[in-house]
Amino acid sequence: MKEATPYAGKRVLVTGGTGFLGLNLVRALRAAGADVRTLSRSANSPSPSGGGQGGGHFQGDLRDRALVDKAIEGAAVIFNLAGHSGSTSSNLEPFEDLDVNLRGQLTLLEACRHLSDPPTVVFPSSRLVYRPTKEMPVPETWLTGPLSLYGVHKLAAEHYHLLYAHLYGLKVAILRITNPYGFSPHPDEDRYSIINWFIHLAVNDHVLPVYGEGRQLRDYIHVDDVVRAFLLAGSDARAAGQIFNVGSGQGISFRTMAETVIREAGGGRIEARPWPDEAARVETGDFVADVARIKGALGWRPATALDGGLREVIRQYRQMENIR
Amino acid sequence: MKEATPYAGKRVLVTGGTGFLGLNLVRALRAAGADVRTLSRSANSPSPSGGGQGGGHFQGDLRDRALVDKAIEGAAVIFNLAGHSGSTSSNLEPFEDLDVNLRGQLTLLEACRHLSDPPTVVFPSSRLVYRPTKEMPVPETWLTGPLSLYGVHKLAAEHYHLLYAHLYGLKVAILRITNPYGFSPHPDEDRYSIINWFIHLAVNDHVLPVYGEGRQLRDYIHVDDVVRAFLLAGSDARAAGQIFNVGSGQGISFRTMAETVIREAGGGRIEARPWPDEAARVETGDFVADVARIKGALGWRPATALDGGLREVIRQYRQMENIR
Repeated sequence: MKEATPYAGKRVLVTGGTGFLGLNLVRALRAAGADVRTLSRSANSPSPSGGGQGGGHFQGDLRDRALVDKAIEGAAVIFNLAGHSGSTSSNLEPFEDLDVNLRGQLTLLEACRHLSDPPTVVFPSSRLVYRPTKEMPVPETWLTGPLSLYGVHKLAAEHYHLLYAHLYGLKVAILRITNPYGFSPHPDEDRYSIINWFIHLAVNDHVLPVYGEGRQLRDYIHVDDVVRAFLLAGSDARAAGQIFNVGSGQGISFRTMAETVIREAGGGRIEARPWPDEAARVETGDFVADVARIKGALGWRPATALDGGLREVIRQYRQMENIR
Repeated sequence: MKEATPYAGKRVLVTGGTGFLGLNLVRALRAAGADVRTLSRSANSPSPSGGGQGGGHFQGDLRDRALVDKAIEGAAVIFNLAGHSGSTSSNLEPFEDLDVNLRGQLTLLEACRHLSDPPTVVFPSSRLVYRPTKEMPVPETWLTGPLSLYGVHKLAAEHYHLLYAHLYGLKVAILRITNPYGFSPHPDEDRYSIINWFIHLAVNDHVLPVYGEGRQLRDYIHVDDVVRAFLLAGSDARAAGQIFNVGSGQGISFRTMAETVIREAGGGRIEARPWPDEAARVETGDFVADVARIKGALGWRPATALDGGLREVIRQYRQMENIR
């Protein structure tokens, strides 16, 4: 028998449930006894190996209202993770990013507002909505000013969620996530997590490219910590209507991160490269999140230190890449 | 011969050039000797009665890239006024507002960034991007938090403009306009200016509906003052990359405004009505703009007091409505 959790027996929908964050979240929700449904463009439903009641997978696009209407039926909580990732790519394909990331979110919210018992909607936003600043750590009250269309659209989608809460009484919570890393079935894709990609390179004894001197501070957060923040945001009434930073609160330079990956993996080497134009344009400078708000409101705390977190991910990747 | 102005002989494009603000702006630009082009969905080009070199009218939609490419050719300044107006209507037609107001703006900016000599782009935003607050007056640094999709999309379009300045070196300036009023050929439409509509009602001795007690403060600004801000924003290098409030800086209650209109028009009467749900949901409470930034940076000052401004508009409307 399942332990009693806020999710036991509850129907939840994870859109984008086959991506990096989505897969980890689905696993945790199943372990918590939720009746998990997923909606994504991928044909494969996430493996139900984590236990739970299986549940349905809806293959398709968030912009498909008829599909969305089916997928949200009876959901008590929706984790609204679907969308395109990547700053650089968003600037190269602005209309695609606009349509997927804004029309998609609006389709889901429009569908939700017509339900007689509207769900709680948790939306993952990003540190990339903030205006660059020299003052660390950055609280949620800092000015916004994205350097990419990805960031502009994340910010507009935040406002969609808050607006639908105001207009129609939806319960919403927004998480501004820093730089997540952790187990992913797609370590060779760099757009979801730079650390995951670096681990992949180090484990295979390849070169890890570092632009410039790599001195910019980043706030790296393990996906298990992010998933715990999602679970709290979807179940704790104190999260309603709130925006929370989700990060470690620790600044680590990009180069130190790369060196740590190499040391823990026992392979790979750093190669300094000049900044490519497109990357330089979206570079924010230092970023470290102030996480006092979520600590105070929800009692959430980051629990995984970078060294230990990296070691575990390296072990998992090595296992997975050996299996191939 | 024309007086020397920063616009003498310069080609400028006004998108949305047949709307309330657009018509007044086009007239002023022609008077300043500009070679004015317009792009709007209206078949009629704005009357060239204000003098100037005539110029072309491009009939069509801002989302039509081929048309936009033609319209922006050779323009030194673009006043980017095209789009849907109206908070309440945007919440009723969210996808239409998204497509017209965001895909349209993005189409124009994408076209501009490919030009070898990119123009200055001036974008009219709105007080409706701000989060409601009790503290008056409201400076540009106050938090954003729109209560309508119109406001969400205005804010995202602001970010588009600032982003394209950052990524591609466009010169942009953003004006957050309060509640404009002034001569319009469409006084019977309420979505562009509530005062204009009230004048129309008073001149025809009709009822002026006031929701609730009408105590909410508003910042009413004459269109001539707004037009002067546009002209400065498009020609003064100190406006580049800036966001400016454009308002009177004076708070006047909605009811007082209605009473002043009635007094100046010598007709009409107030009727108190309960707030309709849709209007109550987008009601921001008091709003008075802090206009210190534009005063300091550009030397702009509001010049038309409400009484005198109203009297002049009433005279114009009465003339126009008598002609009908």
